[in-house]
Amino acid sequence: MRINEDRLWNREQEVGGYGQDPRGGISRFAWTPEYREAALLLMKWMEEAGLKVRVDAVGNIYGRYEGRQDLPPVLTGSHFDTVPMGGRFDGLAGIMAALEVLTTMHEEGYRPERPIEMIAFINEEASQFLGGHFGSKAICGMLPADYASTSVDRNTGKTMKEAMLEYNMGLDPDHISRAQIHEGDYFAFIELHIEQGKYLLGKDLPMAVVDDIAGIRQFYITYHGESAHAGGMAMEDRHDAFAAAAETACEVERLALHSGSPTRGTVGYIQVEPNEHNIVANQVKFSVDFREVEDGIWERLYEDLIAFVEKQCQRRGLTYEVNSTICTPPCHCHKGLRDLIEESARESRIPYMHMVSYPAHDAMQMGRLYPMAMIFLRSSNGGVSHCPEEWTTKEDLAAGTEVLYGTLRKLSDMNSHEL
Amino acid sequence: MRINEDRLWNREQEVGGYGQDPRGGISRFAWTPEYREAALLLMKWMEEAGLKVRVDAVGNIYGRYEGRQDLPPVLTGSHFDTVPMGGRFDGLAGIMAALEVLTTMHEEGYRPERPIEMIAFINEEASQFLGGHFGSKAICGMLPADYASTSVDRNTGKTMKEAMLEYNMGLDPDHISRAQIHEGDYFAFIELHIEQGKYLLGKDLPMAVVDDIAGIRQFYITYHGESAHAGGMAMEDRHDAFAAAAETACEVERLALHSGSPTRGTVGYIQVEPNEHNIVANQVKFSVDFREVEDGIWERLYEDLIAFVEKQCQRRGLTYEVNSTICTPPCHCHKGLRDLIEESARESRIPYMHMVSYPAHDAMQMGRLYPMAMIFLRSSNGGVSHCPEEWTTKEDLAAGTEVLYGTLRKLSDMNSHEL
Repeated sequence: MRINEDRLWNREQEVGGYGQDPRGGISRFAWTPEYREAALLLMKWMEEAGLKVRVDAVGNIYGRYEGRQDLPPVLTGSHFDTVPMGGRFDGLAGIMAALEVLTTMHEEGYRPERPIEMIAFINEEASQFLGGHFGSKAICGMLPADYASTSVDRNTGKTMKEAMLEYNMGLDPDHISRAQIHEGDYFAFIELHIEQGKYLLGKDLPMAVVDDIAGIRQFYITYHGESAHAGGMAMEDRHDAFAAAAETACEVERLALHSGSPTRGTVGYIQVEPNEHNIVANQVKFSVDFREVEDGIWERLYEDLIAFVEKQCQRRGLTYEVNSTICTPPCHCHKGLRDLIEESARESRIPYMHMVSYPAHDAMQMGRLYPMAMIFLRSSNGGVSHCPEEWTTKEDLAAGTEVLYGTLRKLSDMNSHEL
Repeated sequence: MRINEDRLWNREQEVGGYGQDPRGGISRFAWTPEYREAALLLMKWMEEAGLKVRVDAVGNIYGRYEGRQDLPPVLTGSHFDTVPMGGRFDGLAGIMAALEVLTTMHEEGYRPERPIEMIAFINEEASQFLGGHFGSKAICGMLPADYASTSVDRNTGKTMKEAMLEYNMGLDPDHISRAQIHEGDYFAFIELHIEQGKYLLGKDLPMAVVDDIAGIRQFYITYHGESAHAGGMAMEDRHDAFAAAAETACEVERLALHSGSPTRGTVGYIQVEPNEHNIVANQVKFSVDFREVEDGIWERLYEDLIAFVEKQCQRRGLTYEVNSTICTPPCHCHKGLRDLIEESARESRIPYMHMVSYPAHDAMQMGRLYPMAMIFLRSSNGGVSHCPEEWTTKEDLAAGTEVLYGTLRKLSDMNSHEL
């Protein structure tokens, strides 16, 4: 193995511990003091690896490993923030793998033809601000100019702009377009990430080459009914917003289970007004999250659910509204890049398989501009993710990083017509 | 009409405005500063009506209108606290009606054979502390000695004992049994209350004589599952606590609709962990509230639901627990008292009907010790209750109070063998 397995593991554990949540797990949210501390540690290591470090207008951290020629660099990385009460691998694994690859190359004195850059995307998880994939969306020019000043932290009421200024790293929330990069700026993008499921665990394989990333449709439905006394109001006279939400959540599950594809459908967030045991709810807002790899099914899921919601409203005398937060169609990884990953895995004798990513990733945005591919690492502990128990073993992290090393070496020595 | 319609209405509006909630409506919770202010105003009026006022060990307010003889008094009243963001009639109407009856008698110089007492029960709604009907339960000796020191405000973490001491009205939270009264202490109990539904509204009648009060079974179910990434985890590998809760809420509604009786079943409160749009919930706690007047059905509803919950757990790989907060069997009003109310209504030419109370009331507790009956007033505004829009018209409030006047006059002149 060319990379340093111990260093990789120790760094993953050390930086992964920033943002301890008193309720359990890690809550390292973008632009917070604990995020800043972790970022400073990361940038120190990046500089030690000979990288030229910069922070863009929104807080994405880049590190450039120079090549022999001034060609569009290869870019690799993942996100640096966590969900509330999350773990130490989601996002971070791809950053620490990139750092380890470049640290190894630096120690070896290896100089590629093209530069290699690593990136730590900011605010992928939407833990404070609705939306998600903020850093990569800013890079790809997918956000309106006033995004930072109009996004509000759903817990504190602080705007994203305020959070970015308090971060004190020279960000420019009024000009987030300064973070934008363009077609041709980079040669290719590769993201290593944990699987966040138990597919590889079940197959007893340390890694996978991702073929496709499922489309994601995430939205909030709000039902408006009428509050009433839980004892006083007869069943047939109610306009019960919670009963409608419960039935709709069952329908989300039913649609996912019967789509004819391994669709995933989740209701994970719900807010009930007034949320009292003896009052029929007058307003319920809840999230719906669909993931599906086939474009036609992906579109139909949303349409079918909204038709169901309309029927609920008619039957129960309710009104509803929909607030859409993510609407990203399915996305396909670059064949040439996938072949390179496979070749690298075979060379390093790391067994692998092909799979679909149901979680969305920053790679989906990057795939709009550059050839894109992903490496998945096995999730241990039953495959759980977005929770304190999220885990990937030292050996699997090293195996994936070794494959990333091989892939980046090949890529950075390639001419543009070879990919 | 013998009572003073304007005075009654103005007092209802004035004292009903204490506890303005900035979110809307009235939040007048037991032992709070705003409750205290309202209580002091009420007691002033009670003294002006010639009543001998006292506050018991837990904060129930009594006012005694002396009779010619030292016989067990007639007792009448309702509760003085509100739900969060509630209205101006629930509970309060029964207190203001009682005050108006006694104020009228005082002005008339009328002296009954037996004393008449009015009561303002405290903490009926369980707005801060789980349970409900605290004041009447304390009176009836249904609470353990350490109840006040072990009950905790679910929002502030304050104990009920602390709240009672801060109330500064000479309460005795370490000896709540000092509030207890006994069989034979009173002759009968009558509670006037708004309907909290739209049954009377639909029948175009101002009031009803309540025949039965439905049994109430209120409990919290907590499902324990496993959190996971909404995209990463395949549907068949999930242990989704929210999906189970949603299906159970649908079953609550189904059981209520198909019980063979006009059962009411409500899920009004739900707490989801971690409550994130992209995380499958690992823990969900929600309330279930069943109201049913037939004993056999009342028992079966709970049993059927728990059987359903157990099936959910088996199918989804979850565990569950149940925390029971109210378990009060159906209760029947005293025939002799009902006849007196009907007679008074006929004398005052107030049209009425018979009905069942699905909401629980302090009267259920009082009915364990004394002959008990209830008068219901029409709820306007579509019958909504437990919300700012809760309403009863000035005319209906006066009509019900007039009937209460007639009933109390008859009752307070009765010998014990006549009832």
